[in-house]
Amino acid sequence: MTTPSGRRPYNFSAGPAAMPEAVLQRAAAEMLDWQGSGMSVMEMSHRGKEFGAICAQAEADFRALLAVPEHFHILFMQGGGLGENAIVPMNLSRGNKADFVITGSWSAKSQKEAQRYCQSNIAASNADNQHTQIPAPSTWQVSDDASYVHLCSNETIHGVEFQALPDLAALGSKAPLVIDFSSHVASRPVDWTRVGLAFGGAQKNLGPAGLTLVIVRDDLLGHALDICPSAFNYRIVADNKSMYNTPPTWGIYIAGLTFQWLRQQTEGALTGVAAMEQRNAAKARLLYDFIDASPFYENRVAHDCRSRMNVPFFLKNESRNEAFLAGAREAGLLQLKGHKSVGGMRASIYNAMPFEGVQALVDYMREFERSHA
Amino acid sequence: MTTPSGRRPYNFSAGPAAMPEAVLQRAAAEMLDWQGSGMSVMEMSHRGKEFGAICAQAEADFRALLAVPEHFHILFMQGGGLGENAIVPMNLSRGNKADFVITGSWSAKSQKEAQRYCQSNIAASNADNQHTQIPAPSTWQVSDDASYVHLCSNETIHGVEFQALPDLAALGSKAPLVIDFSSHVASRPVDWTRVGLAFGGAQKNLGPAGLTLVIVRDDLLGHALDICPSAFNYRIVADNKSMYNTPPTWGIYIAGLTFQWLRQQTEGALTGVAAMEQRNAAKARLLYDFIDASPFYENRVAHDCRSRMNVPFFLKNESRNEAFLAGAREAGLLQLKGHKSVGGMRASIYNAMPFEGVQALVDYMREFERSHA
Repeated sequence: MTTPSGRRPYNFSAGPAAMPEAVLQRAAAEMLDWQGSGMSVMEMSHRGKEFGAICAQAEADFRALLAVPEHFHILFMQGGGLGENAIVPMNLSRGNKADFVITGSWSAKSQKEAQRYCQSNIAASNADNQHTQIPAPSTWQVSDDASYVHLCSNETIHGVEFQALPDLAALGSKAPLVIDFSSHVASRPVDWTRVGLAFGGAQKNLGPAGLTLVIVRDDLLGHALDICPSAFNYRIVADNKSMYNTPPTWGIYIAGLTFQWLRQQTEGALTGVAAMEQRNAAKARLLYDFIDASPFYENRVAHDCRSRMNVPFFLKNESRNEAFLAGAREAGLLQLKGHKSVGGMRASIYNAMPFEGVQALVDYMREFERSHA
Repeated sequence: MTTPSGRRPYNFSAGPAAMPEAVLQRAAAEMLDWQGSGMSVMEMSHRGKEFGAICAQAEADFRALLAVPEHFHILFMQGGGLGENAIVPMNLSRGNKADFVITGSWSAKSQKEAQRYCQSNIAASNADNQHTQIPAPSTWQVSDDASYVHLCSNETIHGVEFQALPDLAALGSKAPLVIDFSSHVASRPVDWTRVGLAFGGAQKNLGPAGLTLVIVRDDLLGHALDICPSAFNYRIVADNKSMYNTPPTWGIYIAGLTFQWLRQQTEGALTGVAAMEQRNAAKARLLYDFIDASPFYENRVAHDCRSRMNVPFFLKNESRNEAFLAGAREAGLLQLKGHKSVGGMRASIYNAMPFEGVQALVDYMREFERSHA
């Protein structure tokens, strides 16, 4: 498919999601022979020197990109965010209690699943306002004895994002913070001084589905419940450098190419994640400013916690939804339908979405409004 | 890398392993635009119609290839064989007892991991003969009250393969049979009347690492322990048609292309898995017959349980191992080093390995023997 203008379509899928075209082109070019090895990356033993080099480079590039301190392990795992909803409490809860901050579908799912393994305390929730505002940390009811505090730092479905991570110590909690950063990882820096563990499925901002990244502080290893499967025991995975079982090698390769692409990105004097943050802020501003100024569209999330990555919006007259989506598709703007639990539209504008893609969306929305208002 | 003859090298990796060249070429060609969709398969929402079609076709093709009866579910999961070592007992043991037949490293690992979730009874073991013979089923000490009986139908490391599945009812067991068929799935037919559940990592005979296939009989769903993670609960995965969490979409796509390739294979009047079985038997015969006739090489596995897929062999003078491997590499014969726990060499000759690849290996082995004997 090519668009009327001859360019590749812009893909606004929430995940699996658009990837940098340069990454796809390189993956295609190397498919039958990775760097003279005579093998596709998919055909390499995970214990061979070729894949060992790919994996080590991916880890080093991710560490550099997000300035991950040395006392954090970078684990390449499987099972996605929903898998981690069980794997985290199996590894961290010690069968005691965990605190949860509910800000949307994903944190709610995490809390529900954790109940299999530990007590769960809902420290705060924005369910009363349909997940459109983040409760101020000063209002959170954290426990004295929680093994960890969980939050989802960007809610993919509800479009709610923490603009800064909370300082749990200032709230009276001694527990490590666990963040699910699946849908905004590498879109902005992470303050690791406030994090004990971060996890994310790769399929939004890093690579293909089937790869899960876990970044875990050294002191949190070694406390898994007896019923934790060996393949999902962080201590075992860390000790085996993500090779206890066969890792998702293709996913690590593609994520590694994406990390290299990210390190090459610049905005003015900025590079890497700092450049991406500036670009992502500009992309989000363009789209939210247009929506806010229009009487035809709306976004219902409070301004101070709007996601830069996932922008749910509504046509005020929802009878035009189908026409909007069909016209978008004709204009080469794909996968804009909102999540079924929220309805309306959703534009996911991850790292791989160029500014021009958001501009093309706004241009289309303006023209649709003009012709249908 | 190309070989002296200009062909692509032959890759004998035990897994991740060689893939059909036609599959790799198609994946490369479709990388930026799958069938006019404007998207790479990696960029598609798993809930969209495009990926839905890919996934449904893959399932249908696998069902047709292996004649999987309708009362078995085909699940696309994550975590590999080592993950299943925990996931199977969490779903099937009901906290009671399971029987294990130990024939090599993989079944031994399965038994060890299952002990977290249930009692385990070792019904039989070939550890006394270094995993080179399969104990006759008539000698197995099966339990009256086992929830299931586990075996690994092809031991990748030790090169031991069941040529037929046991009839548990004839042994006095009412339990369903669980088989780990990771390393010979789709290389020969499966007698589903003797199987309750089969699982396999894809990275040997089906596709890339990170995809796990589970084929499970309908009546075995719904008995998971409370501590089974939702993402690994067979009932939940089946009810959601492998879309409870985001599945490894690229792996399913590549496996699907491989299933199509397998369906197109012919040997005389045979097609699909029947054709592959004939071809695999001929490949294995060529290699074993050469080894057995040579005073220079040896294979230590009993003739009646030698694997058609994984052929461990030794140079009787092991001081020549490095020279053998270096020469093989120069001849375009890759990844022949044996598993560290066994030593020596291992030629994995899965479905994707053509007869000509085994012939090239035998030719090289003969020439190496001639020049070094």
